[in-house]
Amino acid sequence: MLSDFGANDWYVASMKAVIARAAPQAQIIDISHEIEPGNIHAGAFVLSQCYDDFPKGTTFLCVVDPGVGSQRLPIVLYTGDYNFVTPDNGLATLLKPCMKRAFGIEPGMCGFEAKTSNTFHGRDIFAPAAAALANGATAHDIGRPLPEFVQLGFQFSPVNELPQAGQVIYFDRFGNGISNLGFHGLSPKPNEIEIGTGQRVPFRQAFSDVPTGKPVAYIGSGDLLEIAINRGNARIMLDLENSPEITLH
Amino acid sequence: MLSDFGANDWYVASMKAVIARAAPQAQIIDISHEIEPGNIHAGAFVLSQCYDDFPKGTTFLCVVDPGVGSQRLPIVLYTGDYNFVTPDNGLATLLKPCMKRAFGIEPGMCGFEAKTSNTFHGRDIFAPAAAALANGATAHDIGRPLPEFVQLGFQFSPVNELPQAGQVIYFDRFGNGISNLGFHGLSPKPNEIEIGTGQRVPFRQAFSDVPTGKPVAYIGSGDLLEIAINRGNARIMLDLENSPEITLH
Amino acid sequence: MLSDFGANDWYVASMKAVIARAAPQAQIIDISHEIEPGNIHAGAFVLSQCYDDFPKGTTFLCVVDPGVGSQRLPIVLYTGDYNFVTPDNGLATLLKPCMKRAFGIEPGMCGFEAKTSNTFHGRDIFAPAAAALANGATAHDIGRPLPEFVQLGFQFSPVNELPQAGQVIYFDRFGNGISNLGFHGLSPKPNEIEIGTGQRVPFRQAFSDVPTGKPVAYIGSGDLLEIAINRGNARIMLDLENSPEITLH
Repeated sequence: MLSDFGANDWYVASMKAVIARAAPQAQIIDISHEIEPGNIHAGAFVLSQCYDDFPKGTTFLCVVDPGVGSQRLPIVLYTGDYNFVTPDNGLATLLKPCMKRAFGIEPGMCGFEAKTSNTFHGRDIFAPAAAALANGATAHDIGRPLPEFVQLGFQFSPVNELPQAGQVIYFDRFGNGISNLGFHGLSPKPNEIEIGTGQRVPFRQAFSDVPTGKPVAYIGSGDLLEIAINRGNARIMLDLENSPEITLH
Repeated sequence: MLSDFGANDWYVASMKAVIARAAPQAQIIDISHEIEPGNIHAGAFVLSQCYDDFPKGTTFLCVVDPGVGSQRLPIVLYTGDYNFVTPDNGLATLLKPCMKRAFGIEPGMCGFEAKTSNTFHGRDIFAPAAAALANGATAHDIGRPLPEFVQLGFQFSPVNELPQAGQVIYFDRFGNGISNLGFHGLSPKPNEIEIGTGQRVPFRQAFSDVPTGKPVAYIGSGDLLEIAINRGNARIMLDLENSPEITLH
Repeated sequence: MLSDFGANDWYVASMKAVIARAAPQAQIIDISHEIEPGNIHAGAFVLSQCYDDFPKGTTFLCVVDPGVGSQRLPIVLYTGDYNFVTPDNGLATLLKPCMKRAFGIEPGMCGFEAKTSNTFHGRDIFAPAAAALANGATAHDIGRPLPEFVQLGFQFSPVNELPQAGQVIYFDRFGNGISNLGFHGLSPKPNEIEIGTGQRVPFRQAFSDVPTGKPVAYIGSGDLLEIAINRGNARIMLDLENSPEITLH
């Protein structure tokens, strides 16, 4: 489950309660419920960084849904390996290259008598759909094939030659800045990175390859270029939030 | 589980650990542990909004307990459908109309050798009691019937005619203001709502029935009147926190 | 699981996803993921307060790892009752007196093909190791015995005679200050406690033994001396953060 519902209110619990009724055997893992309210890009990014750590066959219930109650459709996006139950707003499209088929969820086909509201489809549509999939239904069983679906325009940029420009697009809890620049086996390794303030940051393997308090760039656990301060907060100390541009040399 | 123990400390984990020892098969769902410390009304409200989404037979372990160590009793409140394990302070009384029977928990009847403290009955009394219920005990098995129990004076107000006055009593993560005014099948629908600042807010079906940035009132997912800003924060933008009074016209 | 990964990002989910693939039957309980980033002492303290509430045989997956990517080893610390999977930085050493044997984790012996990174050993080394233990492997099966391991210098101080000096070392969500002074059956009970500001605080059994808003010292649920305000916040109201010294009289 991934959402912007936060930890204070009962919204996540209501969705889990619906799943407990409809699919009591389902094992639930929370990705994050702390996505900035309504920030589809942030939700899509967080999902992109961990979805393929999950077992094949996992159903992802993802609700960042600023358009709840409007005409946007509830869909299942099927990739062959996974199902993503989500509003049709691009939330589950920042995946590694793969087949994607979209199905418009028909609540009546989920086999579950749900409450109805115009403001909480997480409880009333998405959770029943995810429970149906957890019970063995296919995306086709609970929805109608859609000819198209919303995809985010944003994509990661593969690093193929140097210099290359990019930007920091996400900060994690440690203040590490994660960029939109992706490395693969053949990518050239940069020597240093110029950040928005003009400062040059050395490229290394790990935080500890620079002294405590010093900046370092490295290929992070999601194969994206990241910028950190060894045992410090790069978001604050390098002003990356205000100057997110980076250039690899 | 619902509590005011927060996510930083080990209190929730200790309760879950006790349950894992005494009732390892029990499935645990967190409602919220971020209730404002000691705020029984907030805890009661959050519980009221989701408890009936859970399967019949669910045991709710609810600990917002500013009186821990005093003479207040630990109780099980049994409704026929659910058990609520809680301090006797009203925390589990904001339910839809239903039968309620209270039992004073006798720790020695929970079949579990627990630690004892004067400051953490969540671990030492409430979790063992909830585990016993999860193992199939009845409220009567682990406690003595009580002639009375604490009930919150607060109640939701059904909307039966217009105009009607009420107030915003809870803000969710999105800044939506949830009122104490409840709608049922026969309730008259208002045309507009006057909020505390004097501003008039239109009554609609969903957020998206008004333009982005505009205020809207609607019947929320818990059948209470709510006030929101489409893709904005009504708590801040409408000053609802300082002026919680509303009138339905 | 205990970590400093926080609730916003996907790091905890990635670890759980790895465990779901390698040990799908494993039951996971979160202790806290809100340890201050890189604060090994805080993590060790939180772990010390709850680990022995868990069933014998529990594997603790603990990742507060400011040295990730350096030469510090990944280890399993085995106590006879529990396994602690952790970086070798002292995180799991603040335990009650017990046998401890350390094993250096050999990722190749965990029976799981993991991703590799220099910045996220939680996902790539610690989670696979914990999953192997959950599947029945012993610490010896997945690691090599180590002649020594890092232990925190910090220890709790048993109270054997009065007066005794100590200090507040942790604040919980309620603002209660928890000290490094431990009580056991033979410890003398103090009459009052002098805190850093010079104020004298009475020693009682429970919060409610003093009037609302008044300070009280008591033996907390972890058998450590604590200082609180009945229904208030001692961290703020008694300035304990700036003046953590206490003396028992």
